[in-house]
Amino acid sequence: MRLSHETRFRVRYAETDQMRVAYHSNHIIWFEVGRVELCRSLGVRYRDMEQDGVLLAVAEVNCRYLSPVRYDDEVIVKAWVEEVSTRMIQFRYEIRVAEDGRLAARGFTKHLFCDRELRRIQLPERYQQAFGLVCYTQDSP
Amino acid sequence: MRLSHETRFRVRYAETDQMRVAYHSNHIIWFEVGRVELCRSLGVRYRDMEQDGVLLAVAEVNCRYLSPVRYDDEVIVKAWVEEVSTRMIQFRYEIRVAEDGRLAARGFTKHLFCDRELRRIQLPERYQQAFGLVCYTQDSP
Amino acid sequence: MRLSHETRFRVRYAETDQMRVAYHSNHIIWFEVGRVELCRSLGVRYRDMEQDGVLLAVAEVNCRYLSPVRYDDEVIVKAWVEEVSTRMIQFRYEIRVAEDGRLAARGFTKHLFCDRELRRIQLPERYQQAFGLVCYTQDSP
Amino acid sequence: MRLSHETRFRVRYAETDQMRVAYHSNHIIWFEVGRVELCRSLGVRYRDMEQDGVLLAVAEVNCRYLSPVRYDDEVIVKAWVEEVSTRMIQFRYEIRVAEDGRLAARGFTKHLFCDRELRRIQLPERYQQAFGLVCYTQDSP
Repeated sequence: MRLSHETRFRVRYAETDQMRVAYHSNHIIWFEVGRVELCRSLGVRYRDMEQDGVLLAVAEVNCRYLSPVRYDDEVIVKAWVEEVSTRMIQFRYEIRVAEDGRLAARGFTKHLFCDRELRRIQLPERYQQAFGLVCYTQDSP
Repeated sequence: MRLSHETRFRVRYAETDQMRVAYHSNHIIWFEVGRVELCRSLGVRYRDMEQDGVLLAVAEVNCRYLSPVRYDDEVIVKAWVEEVSTRMIQFRYEIRVAEDGRLAARGFTKHLFCDRELRRIQLPERYQQAFGLVCYTQDSP
Repeated sequence: MRLSHETRFRVRYAETDQMRVAYHSNHIIWFEVGRVELCRSLGVRYRDMEQDGVLLAVAEVNCRYLSPVRYDDEVIVKAWVEEVSTRMIQFRYEIRVAEDGRLAARGFTKHLFCDRELRRIQLPERYQQAFGLVCYTQDSP
Repeated sequence: MRLSHETRFRVRYAETDQMRVAYHSNHIIWFEVGRVELCRSLGVRYRDMEQDGVLLAVAEVNCRYLSPVRYDDEVIVKAWVEEVSTRMIQFRYEIRVAEDGRLAARGFTKHLFCDRELRRIQLPERYQQAFGLVCYTQDSP
């Protein structure tokens, strides 16, 4: 069963553009906000994980824009782990406008586990359970 | 034959993050820079087109990150029209690091032609040629 | 007596730079977040005021940086009206790190009241009380 | 005699807000662009100086906004060293719109010389001349 997490915040004036909607690269930043709070809800503070030498380097970003988001709208970012291995993790996202529940955007990000020098590593065991990697242990005959 | 355009600029300090590389949403903004300069090279100043009531609303963004881009790197954004109809246009992009020509990212954006109220419209004829929409004219006999 | 308002949020990864602290222009955006929430607490939703044709055009920004703010720090932006007339308004701000209460930055912004074409106007009477402009009324005798 | 440097670039769509002008925190980023190019013109590549362990931590920012800057405007950022000691450096800036030479903003930033751990240091001698610190040498009588 997949766990998801919802994060709420308001669109900043700085995030609007002259089309009078949120500029489209901000949704990618909102994905990050949702992802970080999802991780926290799974027991992983991303800041600590990075200090521990495990980084999530972004390999791909995709976002489909379904309806405009405006200044001061409260948005809800729903995030969940779509797929995970010891090498990579894919998150999915939905952005809704709180007022009417309207779906504004949806997308995904793919990440590679890396060390501080951005070399690819395997996700250390101590993080595998939090991200839903099932650890089969063969105890017995 | 497809026309492409290359734009060069340096990565700003403000665009880096604590991983010591350019934060990944900036590539989406760089796509915009490349797209605008491509349009200019095709004879369309996007600012004027907008004032004329024709907007390019972003419908989808995709970016694959192949190698990190660092502060003060000079990057080259290559942009071209991948597909166009009277309803939508798709641009493609490659971002390279000038110093060694290394491919840093590639992606696309899809846009719908809209009016000022963000309602979908058909691309007016006066812009069709610039964006490569072939206009068959039956002159004869 | 001056009313102030405090707003809390976490520093985004996107807001860090390669010095591993929040890049300094973000504090200016955080001032905006604090200002908007202060206005809301005073009974003015800035979005509505703008739709009503009253804009706050920024005339000056100042920020002193006292200690670094890091990724995922929860910050508290305290904002208050320092000075107001029918022509301009000045807000002041303090940014603290929630964890230890440490003062990270302080500053101010000055704004001119403008209409949609960015021409200077006088603050309409209907907003004067909210922003603390005392309205002396001489009723008697 | 003070050396100044001018840098030119176009305002990005991402930098506009729904007031249809460049959002005011971007001017602070443009100051950075101007400052970095000024340093380069003085013989100091800021990236190299940082790798050498000498950082410019921002202590104060000030900007006065005199006229709006719009999307796709070409702006000229003029930057110069206003004051320098072995402990701090102050830069000043003017932002003009290239088309009509109109002054859009002016301001300053103050910086402390720091090491990688953001502890204050003295500017090493090897950088003093570039930044205009006169080095009196007593060779004689």
